[in-house]
This record gives sequence, structure tokens and C-alpha cells, in this order.
Amino acid sequence: MAPDSSDIGIGLLGLGTVGSGVAGALSANGAEIARVAGAPLTIRRALVRDKNRKRAVELGHSLLTLNPADVVEDDTIDIVVELLGGEEPAHSLIQAALKQGKHVVTGNKEVIAKYGPSLMTLARANGVGLRFEAAVGGGIPIIAPLRRDLAGNQVIAISAIINGTTNYILTRMAQEGASFEEALAEAQSLGYAEADPTSDVEGIDAAYKLAIMASLGFKTRVEHAAVYREGIASLEARDFQYADELGYAIKLIARADRVPEGILARVVPTLVPYTDPLANVDGVINAVQVEGDLVGRVTFQGPGAGAGPTASAVLGDVIHLARVVTSGTTELPLPVPDGDIPVLPLDHLQTRYYVRVTVDDRPGVLAQIASNLGQHDVSIASVTQKETFDDDQTAELVITTHSARESAIQQALAQITALPAVSKLGALLRIEG
Amino acid sequence: MAPDSSDIGIGLLGLGTVGSGVAGALSANGAEIARVAGAPLTIRRALVRDKNRKRAVELGHSLLTLNPADVVEDDTIDIVVELLGGEEPAHSLIQAALKQGKHVVTGNKEVIAKYGPSLMTLARANGVGLRFEAAVGGGIPIIAPLRRDLAGNQVIAISAIINGTTNYILTRMAQEGASFEEALAEAQSLGYAEADPTSDVEGIDAAYKLAIMASLGFKTRVEHAAVYREGIASLEARDFQYADELGYAIKLIARADRVPEGILARVVPTLVPYTDPLANVDGVINAVQVEGDLVGRVTFQGPGAGAGPTASAVLGDVIHLARVVTSGTTELPLPVPDGDIPVLPLDHLQTRYYVRVTVDDRPGVLAQIASNLGQHDVSIASVTQKETFDDDQTAELVITTHSARESAIQQALAQITALPAVSKLGALLRIEG
Repeated sequence: MAPDSSDIGIGLLGLGTVGSGVAGALSANGAEIARVAGAPLTIRRALVRDKNRKRAVELGHSLLTLNPADVVEDDTIDIVVELLGGEEPAHSLIQAALKQGKHVVTGNKEVIAKYGPSLMTLARANGVGLRFEAAVGGGIPIIAPLRRDLAGNQVIAISAIINGTTNYILTRMAQEGASFEEALAEAQSLGYAEADPTSDVEGIDAAYKLAIMASLGFKTRVEHAAVYREGIASLEARDFQYADELGYAIKLIARADRVPEGILARVVPTLVPYTDPLANVDGVINAVQVEGDLVGRVTFQGPGAGAGPTASAVLGDVIHLARVVTSGTTELPLPVPDGDIPVLPLDHLQTRYYVRVTVDDRPGVLAQIASNLGQHDVSIASVTQKETFDDDQTAELVITTHSARESAIQQALAQITALPAVSKLGALLRIEG
Repeated sequence: MAPDSSDIGIGLLGLGTVGSGVAGALSANGAEIARVAGAPLTIRRALVRDKNRKRAVELGHSLLTLNPADVVEDDTIDIVVELLGGEEPAHSLIQAALKQGKHVVTGNKEVIAKYGPSLMTLARANGVGLRFEAAVGGGIPIIAPLRRDLAGNQVIAISAIINGTTNYILTRMAQEGASFEEALAEAQSLGYAEADPTSDVEGIDAAYKLAIMASLGFKTRVEHAAVYREGIASLEARDFQYADELGYAIKLIARADRVPEGILARVVPTLVPYTDPLANVDGVINAVQVEGDLVGRVTFQGPGAGAGPTASAVLGDVIHLARVVTSGTTELPLPVPDGDIPVLPLDHLQTRYYVRVTVDDRPGVLAQIASNLGQHDVSIASVTQKETFDDDQTAELVITTHSARESAIQQALAQITALPAVSKLGALLRIEG
């Protein structure tokens, strides 16, 4: 990685959609990128699974290899770009590249969420850079702003729509009254959702991304497994209608708050008031709100996925590291988020709630529910009887509460659903923003 | 600036609202900032105009000085923070500090717009950093994202609401039907507008900021004087009402587009469709939209002014440079935007238009206007007769056009306003987004 090397060697681990996007952009914007980076960026090798597969961008056949060592051990490669996704072999290959003294750029949210601090430490020990802007929010600059531009702030909260697949599904459910199943099928037909949508619809993907942002924002270790998750599969079309009547959109919000006792982190379907910018983020667009003690609230919004946006984030990191090489400086070591602020169970959450219950359609039932909530210090903000079902003499109540403790609402609902007059808890959603 | 220095010396040029905000944050978040920066940040000297003035944050009286040399020539100061504003003495003092081998952080949009490239070159020559995140968009990270995170893109357009004072005024005019004078007075009483509001309402402040963003985004030199400007003082309350009926907000949009022949840059009151995120940016909030060939459209939104947000931006830069010092590395030299892509006259603009004219209230007038527009290849999208004034037998027409060339609409309107039946051109506004 001599500063005087005439060009910068790039090694690609993976040449799928994003890898092809990166290769394509490097050739399309090559001259300008060379000017900004201080030298031309040249792809030296690319790890693939099948050399003969047709690709959007054709690299010379001789550049393709099935052997990872051809990339991570090539002395002419300065920067390794990992775009394999998934935990292994990505994690091991990133480790190997760093140990070889190569800068690494990755868009791998799972690896960074699970091994970020140890990999950052490894990068520092080897005097190289590890950058992962593409791991969260696709093309939206959010990692660097959290680590650098907002570093003077005590971050109070991070609230985000950070999974395009679920936001697309929720948008269709809201706009068309579609069922979850219908909207999911539509998303799959458009390529927005995978055949197995579990990671998206269960909030696993969003939890990885929130863990990364919360770790950097709060400068501590937030394990993805400590992020409380609820998926969107149980949402019903009429919850969107009822929420709308109350002035709210329903979004899968990934949110982390710094509270006195520690950190509250969750990915849950949430009622967001239409006055909140996040309520108007529709389709596959992502948005991240960061609240800091100095800056107040800043919002970053843009395309959260796709070859172009992800390539934009990857190339931003690659160009930065290329500058490090061409200028003969070293990557500025950033603090490793290795603090130990506790991540709290959701019981500590204090917020407002939306409750939909099916009850016997007769006098006195609401009084029972209200008194039960009252016994748990949960005060009701509004109650609406939505539908009555004549066949079984039941009615549907939608209740919103004032701010209450999660543990209190859970205990109250446990007792309420045990009441003879209450046949079903249709939905319990949090209201935030 | 020895890497082993036990703490980092900060020198403040100016201790007004923002300077006090920076000093306050350094003491409030000091421990955490020291951890992130790698060493404590200590204010060594602060240039003030009056040592005895009461300030929000009290520094030791011995730290205050009336002599700039005490700051820019103090060997114990590593980073000089310029918050004087205005061209001089700010520009000279930044030069002096850089020549002394000190890193410089400034929020001075006028100095950066006028002298950015020469100061960046001077900083590089002296092996130090010059950072100015606070010069545009207050606490919103936008300078660093443009220079680094989005560097892989060919930037196509930058569109922004970048002056909080005028956005507050326009928001009140839209929401309350207030006149410009009423809304300005309200903004002044709230401290959002200065006694002399010229720089804000005439778009001068926004032109400085747009010139900075366009220079960095297009990697060329965009002179602030080459930015076409129209102020908001001539807007009338009913333009907001008419625009609203057509589905548009009126915002002071600072916009630069990369077109084949060069760059179009202007700060003009603009009709923005409600479907565009910028249309919903109200009050003193700022927002910047960047459109790139890879990323598509990303939006950055947040508080564009005030002590806290500006201090957030300043401290982000200060902490970054402190890391450079503590790690013994050097600031990564970024490309100087010294290209020479021509900035074109507005005649080259191709967009849609909103025209309000007062005409004689009799048959045939619209036909005259329509044929005149047609002769200049300007096709009408909609015409509405808004009001008739019985006293002088006149009526008000609001016309929107399909996309047309600025030069064509200007020529057409010159002839139209010369028609005997046309008494007044009430408004000519561009429609974009």
C-alpha cells in the first residue's frame, strides 16, 4: 500500500447486485473518482461462486476467482470490499484481510452488528481502516455522521424506518387496505421481499441495523440480541384504518432511547403521528432520526437499498480509504463502542399505547376494562367502539392510553384478556413520536 | 501540536451566541468528548470585543483577550475556532492561523463562499485541516456527506431550504395568510430575523450556502455572485392561497443543477408540490436534498441555526481535528473544488412557471395572452380567473405553464405586460420538484 503506487488495487468479495453496481460505477465515474481519490481505482480480483454466470457488469474473466485467498492475500490489493452478506465466510475473510494490512469496506450489517467492536479493534491494531456505511440505510449517510459529525452530542434517541421491505408492505396496507399476506405477495412479486421474508418481517434485519447505530450513537456495546422485536405479520388492515382516524400512520420503527438506567432498544410496529416526518416516509425509502442534546433532531432520508444507493455508500468509503493510501496518511482511529451501558428489558419503556380488544357487546364491559387499567395506573386517552358483530354479540373497542409503563399495560392486559367479557386482544401497539 | 500533548488547546475567535454554545458544550459534555477525542479539549484563549460583557457561559476572565494574535499565535493552541462571522477580520485571522500551522474550524459561510478554495489550498500547504460543517445548515451534517460519503456520485442536483428566517416568514404567510411585512415583524420579534433582514430576505445568505454546496457537490468553483437571486419581499398572501389550491407550497429554494452546458444555480421563491419532502419543511427548519447518479435522492433535515445546533457542527469538526492531533496522523487532504464548469445565466433554465397577471375583465384578453405565450413555445397547463375588481373592471388570472425555457417565458411576459389589456404582472414564480 505504498503511497506512491500509481493506482489503488480493489478486491471484491462478491459480485452480485451490489458488487456489480460498484464495478459498474467504478468504470462509469472512473475519471472523476480517480481525481477525487488521488489515483485510479482498479479492480484486481473478484471472488465469485460461478465464473460463468452472466452479470450486469462483465469484468475480465481472468479477474474472477473462486478462491478467497486470491483476494485477501493479493499484495497488489489495497482495499478489500466485502459484499457477500451473511455471517460466514464474510466475517473470517474480513478478519483475514485486516490481518493482511488491507483496508476493508463492507455492507455486512450482520457481521458488523455481531463483531463490529472486535473488528474495529483488529483494524486499529493493523493500522488500517474498516468502514461500513453501506451496512445501514443503503445510500443514506448515517454511520459517518453518527461517528463524526454528531460526535459532540450526547445522543438521546435514534428512531428509524430502516427496513424497506416492511415499509413497502405497511405502506400498501395503509394505502390500499391490503392484508399483510396480499402486501407481502406484492412486495415479493416486485423483488422487494425475499422468498423467505422472515428476516425482514420479523424485524431481525432492522435489529442488526439498530444495534449498529445505537452502539455508535451511545458509544457503547448494544448487542443485536438485546433489541426487543415484534414483527408486522399480525397487523390487520383495520388497525391502519383506526390509526388513521386517530391521526397516526403505522410504521415498523427501530428505536433506541438513552434513559437514566440505561438503553431501551426495540423494533416494533408503532403508531406515528402524521406530524412526525417518519409518518410520511413511504415505500422502500428509509429514514433515520437522531436526537442529540446539542443538535436537537436531525433526519436523514433516502433509498435504503438497491445496487446504486448501496454502491454509493460503498464507494464513499472506498474513495476515503483510497485517499488515505494516496496521501500516505493513516486511517484516523475512531473510538471503539465498547462501553457497557446496560440494555434494559422493555418493561422499563414509558410510552402511550393503542389497544384493540373484542368484547361482549353489553353494558358494563368498558367499565371493567377501565377500572382494570386504572388499577395499574394506566389512564385512558380515548375509547371508540368500532364494530359490533351481531352474530356473536361482540364488539370491538379501540383504546388509546396516556403515557404508561410497559410493565403496567402488560399486567393490565393479562387480567383484561382473562375477563369473561373479553374474547380477544386484537392488537397492542405503541404510540411514539 | 505534539501528539503526546496531554490535552488539546482550543482558541476561540468570537464568544457570542455560538461561541458560548461551544464553550458550554465543551464543559457540559467534556468527559465524553475527551474520551471520543482522545484527550481533553481545553479553551486556552477567546477573542472578544468586550471583556466585561455578561455571557451565557463565563470563561475565566484571564482567558478573554481583545488581541487576535493572542489566539492565532499561541503555541499552546492546536485548533482555532472562528465564529466572528462576516468577511473581515475573519478571513485574515483564518489565514494567519493556518499559516501558524493550526487547524481551523469555522462556521463562516461568507468567508468559505468567497475564499474556500484558496483557504483549503493554504491549509493543505501547511499540513493542517480547515473544516466548516457549521457554515451550511447549522447542525445538519451536509458538508462532510457531500465531500466524503457521496463522493462516488456524479451529483445531478442540490435543492435546499437553507435559510431559516425566510422559511419561517413563508410558513407564517402560508399558514396565517399574513402579509410579508406582518410575518417579517413577527420573525423579528422572535429573534428569527435581524433588524436589517436584507441578507436573509434577498437570498444573499442562501446564495453563500448554495455556492459552498454546489462547489463541493459538483467539484468545481461556483462563485456566490454567479448565483441568480430573487427575494421573497414581493410575494403576496394570495399567491400562497392560489399555490395551495394548485397543490403547491411556496418556499425559498436554493437550487443548483448540473446540465450538459454547465451549472444552473439560483435562490428563488419556488412552488414546490406537496408530494415533495421540501414542501413540508416548515418554520426555521432547514433541509437539503442531494440527487446523485448512484444514490438517487437523499434528504438531510434539521435545525438550521441556533447556538446548540451550530455548536454541534463546530464540535464535530473540532473533535475530528483533535483526533488527528492525538493520533499523530495528519488531516486527510480533500480535493479543492477548483474546476471551471461554467455557471450559466438563468436563461438556460427549463422549468414550469406560475404567472399572476391583472387584466381588463373582458372577452378576448385570455386569447391574446395565450397566443403570445404560444408564439414563444410556452404551453399553458392551467388558467384560472381568480378575482374580478368591479371598481376598475379588471380581473386576476393565474396561469401555470408546462416546462418552458426561462428566456422564452421572459420574452413572452415582456410582450404580454405591454398589451393594453394587461395592467400588471403580479407574480412570476418557478415550479420545481
